[in-house]
Order: sequence, then C-alpha cells, then structure tokens
Amino acid sequence: MLIMEKDEKIIEMSRLMWEQAIPHFSVDSVVFGFHENQLKVLLVRMAKTQTWLLPGGYVFKNENVHDAAQRVLKERTGAEKIYLQDFGIFGNLNRSEGFFEQYDDDLWHKQRFISAGFYALVDYTAVNLATDTFSDSCEWKSITDLPDLGMDHQHIYDTALTILRQQLSYKPIGMNLLPEKFTISELQKLYETILDRQLNRGNFYRRIMRFDMLIKHEDQRKGGAHKAPNLYSFDPVKYHESLQGMDW
Amino acid sequence: MLIMEKDEKIIEMSRLMWEQAIPHFSVDSVVFGFHENQLKVLLVRMAKTQTWLLPGGYVFKNENVHDAAQRVLKERTGAEKIYLQDFGIFGNLNRSEGFFEQYDDDLWHKQRFISAGFYALVDYTAVNLATDTFSDSCEWKSITDLPDLGMDHQHIYDTALTILRQQLSYKPIGMNLLPEKFTISELQKLYETILDRQLNRGNFYRRIMRFDMLIKHEDQRKGGAHKAPNLYSFDPVKYHESLQGMDW
Repeated sequence: MLIMEKDEKIIEMSRLMWEQAIPHFSVDSVVFGFHENQLKVLLVRMAKTQTWLLPGGYVFKNENVHDAAQRVLKERTGAEKIYLQDFGIFGNLNRSEGFFEQYDDDLWHKQRFISAGFYALVDYTAVNLATDTFSDSCEWKSITDLPDLGMDHQHIYDTALTILRQQLSYKPIGMNLLPEKFTISELQKLYETILDRQLNRGNFYRRIMRFDMLIKHEDQRKGGAHKAPNLYSFDPVKYHESLQGMDW
Repeated sequence: MLIMEKDEKIIEMSRLMWEQAIPHFSVDSVVFGFHENQLKVLLVRMAKTQTWLLPGGYVFKNENVHDAAQRVLKERTGAEKIYLQDFGIFGNLNRSEGFFEQYDDDLWHKQRFISAGFYALVDYTAVNLATDTFSDSCEWKSITDLPDLGMDHQHIYDTALTILRQQLSYKPIGMNLLPEKFTISELQKLYETILDRQLNRGNFYRRIMRFDMLIKHEDQRKGGAHKAPNLYSFDPVKYHESLQGMDW
C-alpha cells in the first residue's frame, strides 16, 4: 500500500475513533511465544517511522476493557480466547511525545493516552500474524535480540517480563508455550530462557514436582544418542489449581 | 455539613473536573494496615447513599497516573511516599451504574469510568484519616468484617487480596505493616491473617529464614509468662533485594 493511502486511512480511522472510542485510553499487550528454545515477543513496525511497538489499540464506548484487549490481539494474531492478564497501568505525561507529529493536532492519536498493560502466553504455532493500518510488519522477535521500542513500550515490556519471572516462583508456566508433550529438560530450558540464567537440574526437578501438575507418559522422546527421556504433559485441572498460588 | 451544601460542592467539583481532569479514567486504592493482629482495609462512606467504597479519585491533565494515586491517598490519609503498586485495570461497562442517579446527566461522575487499581501497605499508626466532598466517614475496617462495597469495589478488593496472598510466596511482606521490632510469631500471625489459615510453625520459620532478610536483636520481648522470644527487624537492603523475586 502506498504511503498516501496509509495517510488517508489514518485520518479516516481518527474520525471514527473520536466517534466510537473512549478518549485518552489504550491497551497494549506483551505477547510471549516459545519457539526453538527461544522466548519471543510479538512486535509491530510502524510503516512511516519504522519504529517497533507492542501491539495495541483502543476501547470502544460500548466495550469492556478486557474484551477490547482480546479483540486487538485477535486482529493481530487470529487467536481467540487466549490467556490475557492485565498487569499494570502506564500513564506518565508525554509518554508518546513526538509520535504522529506530522499530523494535525486534532488527530485522535495525538491525545495523551493512559495505557493498560496486558500480557499473554500463546502457542507460537497457532498464530497467524497480520498488520494494521499503521504497520507494515508484525513479527516475532527473540527477547535476546529486541529492536529499540518506541514510546514507553520498552518499560511496558520490561514490567511484563519481570512479572512473568516473579510468577515462575509460585505459578506454573508452560501450558500454551510448550507442545502438548515435552521432556523435563525442555521445560527447564523454558524456565532458563525466561529467567535468563542456568538452573541446577536436581533443584529444578524437585521444585517442579512440588507443583504436582505433570502427567508422565509411557512413550519417550526418540532419536537422541542418549537414553530416551520421559515425556510429560500438564494435568489441566492441577495446572489451573496451581495458578491460584503456591502453598505455604 | 448539610446535604444541600454537599450537593453544591459536588456540582462545583464536577465543573472543575471537566476542566482539569482526564475524562473516563479514575484510580482506586486498596489500602491495607495491620493492627492488633487484624488485617484492615481503608474505606470511605458516601454521605448521601451511605455506601462504602475504596478511596479513589481522578487524574489531572498535567499529572502522571501514579502521582495521582499518591495524591488521592495523601488526601485521605495524610501519608506521603507510601508503597503503592498498580495491579490491574477495571473497565467493565456499567460498573458504576445507578451511582449519582439523582444528578443531571452532565455531572462528571456519571461518565463511564475505567479505573486503575492500586494497593498499598501502610503503617496503621502513621495515618490520619480525613473525609472528602462525597463522604461522611473514612475508616479502617477489619477484612473479616467488611461492609458491602458499592460499584465493582468488592471485585477490586478481592483482586488486590489475591495478589497480596500470591506475593507472600515470593516477596517479603511485613515492612510497613509491623512495628520496627517484632517476634517471629508476630510475623507468622501477620502471614496467617493475610492467608486466612494456620501455618505450621517450623515450616514458616524455615521459609522466612530462606528470604535471609531478618536481623536478630539482642533484646527480647518482655512480659510474657514463657521464655522471652527474640526480637527481629527487617534488613532494609536485603528486604528490597528480596522484593525482586525469590531465587530458584
């Protein structure tokens, strides 16, 4: 699409948003996926400035905020009913200063926006990415090789990652991020990737088993040079019980 | 103050808010304090309807959202720079339906509001409570004997308590809620009150010691019939390190 057409679309969208959406308020989502032993996050690139941002959007006047976050994510990924958790509010003055400066002052997007942060853990393979009016790219980026993010989106991302890391201590993480069956060392690799450090194998095994949420399968991972490791999957009932918090 | 004067003040406040505040957006805080072995929460009572609510307020156009939450809490409690943490967004349609129905439709307070939830842990003894334009009472209420809350404030409160309970698993809680020096059983009592169940004394001792954040004092608690228990206080540096999350 030509830049000129994009501009016309942005101005048309601005007009619609002033009619239909709650002013001054947006939602932004930090969407994590796990692929080839790498934790990835979903980013969109603004066509005009080539700035990378978290996927975000606005809330319609007749729409619940959590429904809006789901809708925006569905527009970007095609995925429905994913695990989406609000985790904080980002409302500093001038957090988006300088963005959209080429447009008139009555452009919707030039308001001061207060943004609610959501995070999601999604099945990397179940996602079909799509761009929106502003963006020319929507991609998974490895968290070890993130581009610079615009506005305050680095701060929103950092906060989500901190919360995800803290939650590893008392909530199980993995369903949605791993295939249905996995080995303990694949699960440990996921934890090490999120925490960004090596874990002791024995300690990890004992702590994971304390959550009491894994089902051991008869079949084993084949093809390696070593003894075939056991395959596990999450017990959905116990997994969701564990989400309520670790016992003292 | 007479009801009539309160009404005039509400209409005057409405006029000012339309000029000075971000529309459609509010902050509400769940403020916990600990006193006489009870966990308490700060509530305000609306003068006209006698409905209890969490203390909340609005964000000025030239104000950061977190600064607004601090300001609102200072207005209610006199306390400054307290530990205040955003934890979620409450934005369902009609969450405040029926409130302020006796006023004209252009009253500021009749808008749809999306509210950011904050929680605070404060020193019960350091707080001086004050009412605002709408309220005729501002009180600590024990969490075991809460009155019905208006709007969706029961849901906001429940969410804050759930998060506080989860955080006990990986963050130290107690600074601000306990006196400077305390016994291990006083700390255990605080945890039991928040979790609303008995904890095994030996397990509690071992887990608390794993946080490695307590300083043991030479002096002991006097006056009891039994052997005087040791007094402890939090090591501020290690306490704040532990806030970053438990080690795997």
